[in-house]
Amino acid sequence: MTRRRLLAAGGGAVGLAVAGGGYALGARQDDAAAGSAASVPFYGAQQAGITTPPQDRLMFAAFDLALARAGELRDLLRTWTAAAALMTAGRPAGSPGGDPDAPPADTGEAVGLGPARLTVTFGFGPRVFRVNGEDRFGLAAREPAALAPLGPLPGDQLEPERSNGDLCIQACADDPQVAFHAIRDLARVARGAAVMRWTQVGFGRAASTGRDQLTPRNLQGFKDGTNNLDASDSAAMGQYVWVGDEDPQAWFQGGTYVVTRRIRMLIETWDRSTLRDQQDTIGRFKESGAPLTGTHEHDRPNLRARTASGRPVIPLDAHIRLAAPSDNSGIRILRRGYSYSDGIDPATGELDAGLFFICFQRDPHSQFVPLQRRLGSRDALNEYIRHTSSALFAVPPGAQRGSFVGAGLFHT
Amino acid sequence: MTRRRLLAAGGGAVGLAVAGGGYALGARQDDAAAGSAASVPFYGAQQAGITTPPQDRLMFAAFDLALARAGELRDLLRTWTAAAALMTAGRPAGSPGGDPDAPPADTGEAVGLGPARLTVTFGFGPRVFRVNGEDRFGLAAREPAALAPLGPLPGDQLEPERSNGDLCIQACADDPQVAFHAIRDLARVARGAAVMRWTQVGFGRAASTGRDQLTPRNLQGFKDGTNNLDASDSAAMGQYVWVGDEDPQAWFQGGTYVVTRRIRMLIETWDRSTLRDQQDTIGRFKESGAPLTGTHEHDRPNLRARTASGRPVIPLDAHIRLAAPSDNSGIRILRRGYSYSDGIDPATGELDAGLFFICFQRDPHSQFVPLQRRLGSRDALNEYIRHTSSALFAVPPGAQRGSFVGAGLFHT
Repeated sequence: MTRRRLLAAGGGAVGLAVAGGGYALGARQDDAAAGSAASVPFYGAQQAGITTPPQDRLMFAAFDLALARAGELRDLLRTWTAAAALMTAGRPAGSPGGDPDAPPADTGEAVGLGPARLTVTFGFGPRVFRVNGEDRFGLAAREPAALAPLGPLPGDQLEPERSNGDLCIQACADDPQVAFHAIRDLARVARGAAVMRWTQVGFGRAASTGRDQLTPRNLQGFKDGTNNLDASDSAAMGQYVWVGDEDPQAWFQGGTYVVTRRIRMLIETWDRSTLRDQQDTIGRFKESGAPLTGTHEHDRPNLRARTASGRPVIPLDAHIRLAAPSDNSGIRILRRGYSYSDGIDPATGELDAGLFFICFQRDPHSQFVPLQRRLGSRDALNEYIRHTSSALFAVPPGAQRGSFVGAGLFHT
Repeated sequence: MTRRRLLAAGGGAVGLAVAGGGYALGARQDDAAAGSAASVPFYGAQQAGITTPPQDRLMFAAFDLALARAGELRDLLRTWTAAAALMTAGRPAGSPGGDPDAPPADTGEAVGLGPARLTVTFGFGPRVFRVNGEDRFGLAAREPAALAPLGPLPGDQLEPERSNGDLCIQACADDPQVAFHAIRDLARVARGAAVMRWTQVGFGRAASTGRDQLTPRNLQGFKDGTNNLDASDSAAMGQYVWVGDEDPQAWFQGGTYVVTRRIRMLIETWDRSTLRDQQDTIGRFKESGAPLTGTHEHDRPNLRARTASGRPVIPLDAHIRLAAPSDNSGIRILRRGYSYSDGIDPATGELDAGLFFICFQRDPHSQFVPLQRRLGSRDALNEYIRHTSSALFAVPPGAQRGSFVGAGLFHT
């Protein structure tokens, strides 16, 4: 079963749930057309793009706000919501034609490409609420409980110009031009209110988020996401991803937090290391994805197993040992990252490629942070990776039709 | 008909010709799987990736040679040919497993993804033959006749660090991870012999190359490639693309030349211009793609038509007028470019996105150069674009099984 078929299978579930299922008909000659025609609903209790089966392509953008008042932010969120709802349905953000003496209301490059399962997911950075302790827009009283900045983590080599941001938009789609179009048109309609701070393009889903998906390989050639949360397991999502009544901000319940980390892989160093080193670093066999103590990908790693000479079979600094929930007080996160390839590092001529890590969780300070503190200080993988960007955003609940994402910020 | 279906249709022809046609069976439930399974033969009279119906994704890389002798270049080309032949057939460049105490012979990230119509196309830059007039490797006597550097062109704003190069590899596939894998593993096996100078990732085929393909839209939102050469027209290819007996280098007959230009679009400026300005700049209607003198995309532009007030309907500086073969002594080129999106320009916060223009021709100095000289000095589009990189490579004929690409360089 290939990636493409996998995609069709993943999309099928959505298509069925949403639109009666162009995909699932299976035997039609225009199956392929149904791929781009599949859409994911924008409105709902939660934002799409979190538990949605991963699309093939990502464009992520962080923005800084250039506006001065909460009312202007509300207007921006209304505008963005309306445009995102149109585009996720495969429609232009506005009429691409119309008045010849005005700029077109949609930039046009996605015309004819279909919805391509586009999802658009919005988030708020800490500075929407406070800047240097000051209540920037009078919204500090609505700040989600766990939005404090992540703070420095072991091994960080962050580039400030591609870290953080006031707002984020994650656009995922099965067609890169559809994802690009969404970010571009949202940036366009934000002119004067928000400026792009950084963007990241990704491909090839670096982690599966469900048992019905084959596990894709990351750019180190290993299957990635074998032990990820299953996004279709709503009990697990309630336990690990969706904010509940622990947050006194009622408006934010049903939201989540996203942490993004641009993890550059030192490709050339990795490629020169032996298969044994690679497998010991990860704790899995490269070809099968099985833990070093097993034979099948989904075999449960035996972290206590020792060789005849008494050495742990899965080394003490192996990535899967340090990341294992059983060794981390049961901590789990929903990973939904993408591989990236951004040309070469001009300083070295080496590829600037790796993983744009994205994870969703109920509380980053008790989930991502302790996990990364442990990994960042001890993981054998650190020899082969660099965390070059980091960001945290509060992802509010979804919007109901007629309302807009983040409306809860403004209720009086 | 969506892009995805278009792809299936384009792929169908190849699948049929190549492998009996998984695609064309159409009614099978695993159509989607057949997409990645379709392969394009590597060996043949010409290299693949030129007249091959465009795949959805590109990774292009330019290399500088670090070796000293022609024999080492021959060894590199043999190694590259063997690896490319394996990968285009969907096989690893070498065993990804094998000896645990050696680095894996394939980096593994494309395992399970299928051939995905991968093509790998090699080219030689001018410096393979001469550097400052010196015969670098003793190969100057084999230099293709039209490989002199392009020289400065009007409006050039080239960045030297992403221009030119000794060798190039164009990898195109329907899966970006397959294209990435090809470049990465070819760079890996070239260690010590060639270093990457620059790379470019692209998506979404910015031009059609055949009448059976729908014309895709570029990032300015216009259909691009309406009047391109039809790559399935072998008479046209013989006339405009394949080098014939005009080149005294018999080994290079059946080769071609590729020019690449990274054309950044000033997206924000474009998006603020009116629909009328955009249409007058291109000379076509945005929605239909029809020339301003017509109603359907493939209507022939009437360059003499005037309005009631005597103004040319297609302005004198419109892109399609200046690029029209009828106004350029019949010059034609085969365009096969891709859109790109490389984050934002840190200086301005604007998108660094546009067109990675690729064209193939029999003689760049009598085809691309005069065309670009005209466009670069007068095209209304110049207000909205910047040429930021340029390269020229001689693309040798294809290899026969048992031989290697560029073998003709070394025949004695």
